[in-house]
Amino acid sequence: MLAETKFAATKPLDAPALGEPYLLTPGPLTTAYAVKQAMLRDWGSWDGDFRVMTADLRRRLLALTGDARDEFDCVPMQGSGSFCVEAMLGSFVPKDGKVLVLANGAYGLRAAQTMQYIGRAYTLIDKGDYLPPRGEEVAAALQADPAITHVIAIHCETSSGILNPVVEISEAVYANGRKLLVDSMSAFGAIPLDVNEIRYEAMVSSANKCIEGVPGFGFVIARKSELEAAKGRSHSLSLDVHAQWANMNKTGQWRYTPPTHVVAAFLEALRLHEAEGGVAGRGARYTRNRDVMVAGMRDLGFETLLKDRWLSPIIVTFFNPAHPNFAFDRFYELMKDKGFIIYPGKLTVVDSFRVGCIGQMDEHVMRRVVEAAAQSLNEMGVDTAAPSPAAIAERAKLAA
Amino acid sequence: MLAETKFAATKPLDAPALGEPYLLTPGPLTTAYAVKQAMLRDWGSWDGDFRVMTADLRRRLLALTGDARDEFDCVPMQGSGSFCVEAMLGSFVPKDGKVLVLANGAYGLRAAQTMQYIGRAYTLIDKGDYLPPRGEEVAAALQADPAITHVIAIHCETSSGILNPVVEISEAVYANGRKLLVDSMSAFGAIPLDVNEIRYEAMVSSANKCIEGVPGFGFVIARKSELEAAKGRSHSLSLDVHAQWANMNKTGQWRYTPPTHVVAAFLEALRLHEAEGGVAGRGARYTRNRDVMVAGMRDLGFETLLKDRWLSPIIVTFFNPAHPNFAFDRFYELMKDKGFIIYPGKLTVVDSFRVGCIGQMDEHVMRRVVEAAAQSLNEMGVDTAAPSPAAIAERAKLAA
Repeated sequence: MLAETKFAATKPLDAPALGEPYLLTPGPLTTAYAVKQAMLRDWGSWDGDFRVMTADLRRRLLALTGDARDEFDCVPMQGSGSFCVEAMLGSFVPKDGKVLVLANGAYGLRAAQTMQYIGRAYTLIDKGDYLPPRGEEVAAALQADPAITHVIAIHCETSSGILNPVVEISEAVYANGRKLLVDSMSAFGAIPLDVNEIRYEAMVSSANKCIEGVPGFGFVIARKSELEAAKGRSHSLSLDVHAQWANMNKTGQWRYTPPTHVVAAFLEALRLHEAEGGVAGRGARYTRNRDVMVAGMRDLGFETLLKDRWLSPIIVTFFNPAHPNFAFDRFYELMKDKGFIIYPGKLTVVDSFRVGCIGQMDEHVMRRVVEAAAQSLNEMGVDTAAPSPAAIAERAKLAA
Repeated sequence: MLAETKFAATKPLDAPALGEPYLLTPGPLTTAYAVKQAMLRDWGSWDGDFRVMTADLRRRLLALTGDARDEFDCVPMQGSGSFCVEAMLGSFVPKDGKVLVLANGAYGLRAAQTMQYIGRAYTLIDKGDYLPPRGEEVAAALQADPAITHVIAIHCETSSGILNPVVEISEAVYANGRKLLVDSMSAFGAIPLDVNEIRYEAMVSSANKCIEGVPGFGFVIARKSELEAAKGRSHSLSLDVHAQWANMNKTGQWRYTPPTHVVAAFLEALRLHEAEGGVAGRGARYTRNRDVMVAGMRDLGFETLLKDRWLSPIIVTFFNPAHPNFAFDRFYELMKDKGFIIYPGKLTVVDSFRVGCIGQMDEHVMRRVVEAAAQSLNEMGVDTAAPSPAAIAERAKLAA
């Protein structure tokens, strides 16, 4: 059993409109109606009103990482989260730098692919589908290769749903005199990443994850000294974090057209995040979502890929049931018919699917998710959701 | 006088909500309420429903360039329009290629800056603030430098509002055996760019211009043979047009999280565009907007930077009045108080401002714009909006 969280009765959340399914996916996710309503007007991106909105957004995001505004600054960037990861790597890694990429899933590998595109040196620790990169092996890799200047870690790797041990990774990185960059895409806003508690140079996340905005931009939170040093480094005009930062500080505007409506929605999302108790409150609701959902799914026979210690409150991977009547495509459609959009798996070794815990959903919704899964199995003629012995053997690789 | 268009009484357009100003800017612009209402739900980007929306968007955009779907394809890209320009240059220009950049304003110069960032060869014809690059000088430049492989032209250069002569530029490019790329950001959807009438390899535009969507993505329309050839060329993972295209054709999905709400808004905008009579109907309304607005402003003493032949129906630059009581910042605020957000000028030589003609506005709105300008001048104690003789002399440089 997972530890019971302190989160009690949730306040009623905005339900999606009639006929609109809940998105049990790691972003885009189900957002509050008020967030979407904030998009019902147009803003001039040059106008003072919008500049105030941009400043507010930057200030509020910075507050979520410990409010160290003398040392850090926030730079929103147009595009998806992957655009931000590329912007971070291209801006903070010098042209003669070398990056150690810590991968245990698709997003780590994407960071490596980004390094290949931008033509800067990197080396990869690839832990496969989900095994976490640990502090000791990071330290060993850094000691073995003095050319490495930076390490990039994935905070929550949503391919498996694992919460990587970024604190011990950070300790290993700085004990060996290197710099840490964090892709906190799907974790930021629900899992603490306070600069007063964990050291890093820069992190990225995006609008449509745990802050529960709609997709269209991401943001970099970085040490000001690194933002200064990034001048002239970027391989890309559009993805130049220094240029965006310098221009924003000078004019109050984004360099190129911002997604104004998405920004307005995000400000409303930030207000709701604050009202829920910030990172702690949001994290508590998601943890409760996960606990209720995982317990219910286990009762049906489903098994999680990860042992409890590594389960994030963001998204959970389940093995496909071994039962011959189970087919993921049909399960997906049956769940969708009942109002829940789940997510396919991304493991290479065994068949799996994922269920997200983030977005405008509480434990009551999660209980309905479990009921829908039970009904769907029944409709498929699957009497137990137990996975194959091979799947269970796969999990045994993971130390508790 | 400008030629009278055939456009008669406009159908009533959605007015902005109470207290919301009209955006007389070249995008973001005032959109229809129905466009914004389309954002009032959430979509899963992996789900079949959203894949259908993406396919619909690509099909409808392709239809606007002459529907040559055997030869051309449409690839939406996350980010602002400038991201798309960079994606086009990085994907269609080989690493050993060389680009002739035709500049007469900020957007041409930004294309040159992009070439610098991505580290590929280019040469620049810089015509200054607004003078149009002509076919003969393009031909001469191409004959003088056999290394040039591609030419990039700006369709409507919104720094001045000039409609550049892309047809004669295209003729010069292909007569000299080179390839044309077009930045049609602010023109596409209102000014024809039909592949059956003008030859080019690729063009880009964005969601928040003449199609009247909200900002958050742009799109590339390119010859399939160029999309094939672009494989492995891009300097950027996020901005790799080939990879986005190949993935979209294979899976129906965007490679990375799309701005789902912005896409939904754009589909509604495309439906309204079609209902208005497509490119011809949209262009006619904007032309009427421009004619009514320019005539009214001239009656107040304002003078346009450009002679009539070069005025686009997208945005118009006016010289600041020479009257000592005129101050742009105050004029801006007075106009905003009356419900109209205008745009500052971008000329280096003389002071100016701009008024956009695009967005959910018709001639009735444009008459109110002129009235607001008259009242604002009055409140500033400016009895005539006539510009300085120096400004008029500047305009004399431009051949009729």
